[in-house]
Amino acid sequence: MAKWYESPKVDQGIVISSRVRLARNLKKYPFPIRMKKEEAEAVIQQVKDAVINDRTPLGQSFHFYQVDTMPAGEKRMMVESHVISPVLLQQQKPCAVLVKDDETVSIMINEEDHIRIQTIFPGEDIDQAWDLADKLDNLIEETVEYAYNEHVGYITACPTNMGTGLRASFMVHVPSLEATGQINNLSQALSKFGITVRGIYGEGSASLGGIYQVSNQITLGQSEEEILKNLKNAIHLVKDQEQKVRKAIRERDEVGYEDRIYRALGVLQNARKISAQEAADCLSLLREGAQEGVLAWKASKPMYELFIAIQPCHMQKDGQKMAAERDVARASYLRAVFHEK
Amino acid sequence: MAKWYESPKVDQGIVISSRVRLARNLKKYPFPIRMKKEEAEAVIQQVKDAVINDRTPLGQSFHFYQVDTMPAGEKRMMVESHVISPVLLQQQKPCAVLVKDDETVSIMINEEDHIRIQTIFPGEDIDQAWDLADKLDNLIEETVEYAYNEHVGYITACPTNMGTGLRASFMVHVPSLEATGQINNLSQALSKFGITVRGIYGEGSASLGGIYQVSNQITLGQSEEEILKNLKNAIHLVKDQEQKVRKAIRERDEVGYEDRIYRALGVLQNARKISAQEAADCLSLLREGAQEGVLAWKASKPMYELFIAIQPCHMQKDGQKMAAERDVARASYLRAVFHEK
Repeated sequence: MAKWYESPKVDQGIVISSRVRLARNLKKYPFPIRMKKEEAEAVIQQVKDAVINDRTPLGQSFHFYQVDTMPAGEKRMMVESHVISPVLLQQQKPCAVLVKDDETVSIMINEEDHIRIQTIFPGEDIDQAWDLADKLDNLIEETVEYAYNEHVGYITACPTNMGTGLRASFMVHVPSLEATGQINNLSQALSKFGITVRGIYGEGSASLGGIYQVSNQITLGQSEEEILKNLKNAIHLVKDQEQKVRKAIRERDEVGYEDRIYRALGVLQNARKISAQEAADCLSLLREGAQEGVLAWKASKPMYELFIAIQPCHMQKDGQKMAAERDVARASYLRAVFHEK
Repeated sequence: MAKWYESPKVDQGIVISSRVRLARNLKKYPFPIRMKKEEAEAVIQQVKDAVINDRTPLGQSFHFYQVDTMPAGEKRMMVESHVISPVLLQQQKPCAVLVKDDETVSIMINEEDHIRIQTIFPGEDIDQAWDLADKLDNLIEETVEYAYNEHVGYITACPTNMGTGLRASFMVHVPSLEATGQINNLSQALSKFGITVRGIYGEGSASLGGIYQVSNQITLGQSEEEILKNLKNAIHLVKDQEQKVRKAIRERDEVGYEDRIYRALGVLQNARKISAQEAADCLSLLREGAQEGVLAWKASKPMYELFIAIQPCHMQKDGQKMAAERDVARASYLRAVFHEK
């Protein structure tokens, strides 16, 4: 089954992917932070049954993973693939995730909330992500009772998620806004409209390769439709700014622009060891170069897929490797992809 | 006619080339610094006649260039190729150079001394360079009278050249001694044995790409044979040290060693602009990599020839170019040489 990030759509524009996340809790149980082990296990069982025992093809397409007992390396790989969050990685109590075969959906159980429904689609397609999340939300609600207050909306462990429990986000590739530092100004301006700009792995994480998440800050007092509309307006602004700055940088020094892109190709084709940070920077330049028509050359895989593949835990599938060995394995992997002579 | 630096011998070892220079003056004329224009012209005519009017094939293989009236760019190219010295470039009075078709010999007229015979051979072959210089010295002496004192030897403008007037030198590629800073210690130690280590373009010039000149300091009180023997001993020491340090660097971090070499190849194959300094550093790594068997790949031209070809004035044969244009032309030239896909 092809994964969403294998679609050519992830490389076609500034927007890599569109994501929706719904936070839900079961009325009968305390929040995960206060749960007993048996309660945590009961919640997992109920949610698993609600999704997997569904008679529709949708339910059949999910795989269940018990996360707390998984090896640490496999868990970290799931974080790198955005299948689970860093919070679930740290969870000591029984916790789990339901993953759709194409990885467009992951339903985390006993993360900060009992249920976190996450849908993700390649390119700029937040409506499709929302429709699928909404459908799954309804499916689960057929068999479990959500914690819901008619004045507030959905009750969540953290007050910032109260109400709709909805976080919608775009993953964007904005290398020029990053290089010029303008991402910080834009981030400040957008925060006034209730929009947050964060690093690629969510809250508190650093950016890697010019990739950021743009999402709504406010979940309460706005309808789902309003939240999505506001975010779409924000993303138009981000795209517009990146395009303007990119054009200005290129026009100021066309040769320097092409030079940076081709040198990055030279590194990926020749390095014998490379860190995840440097590889991400090189892939970022190649993604931009391909979009801008600078590189005649095309990779055999979408850049974002490579971006995931080079992350530390993906680089040590066969067990624990030292950082130095990973850097060698990463360089070797990239040379193969980039057609070493 | 193939030039000496097109020989594969220039890339086969640590020693790139072997050079001999003889300083001579005509008895009847003041040193160039005190010469009148007509005297300078007379010296040029006499030396030219002595060499070119020779009935042997040797004399026929020389070309004569009046240097003081040449365009500045062409003069600088001759400096970059080691055909003339920076001193002759600056000479305002009539001055000239006789160049053998394969560039193994250049005879500068009215540089610091009336005559500077310079011979240069690829690889480690100082004896051949000496034999040819000696032969030309005798040839010229057949028709002109040298300034010579039986106690001192040959009289020269600068006291440091008095006696034999001989400077013998090896051009060496010692990237590891440079990278570790050990070239400075070695240079200090060798000076105690009357040996000087200098940058690639002679006295006071900086090193470029790990290339240095190792030559005798003393010209007086030693026979030519003693000078050559002393220099040969020094060069064995230099080669030995470079090999030891190179081996140690490689053994400490084999992957890092190969990584640097391949990344340099990536830069040469991909850069859209490159400075002479960076290009020299990359060529240096490739020369070392080829010698050490790290690079499977071979350039179509000897590395030292490329090294000369990328120098600023060689990069603007068609007239005056700005530094930025030269950097673009240099990158384009190198991509063509390094088989851009």
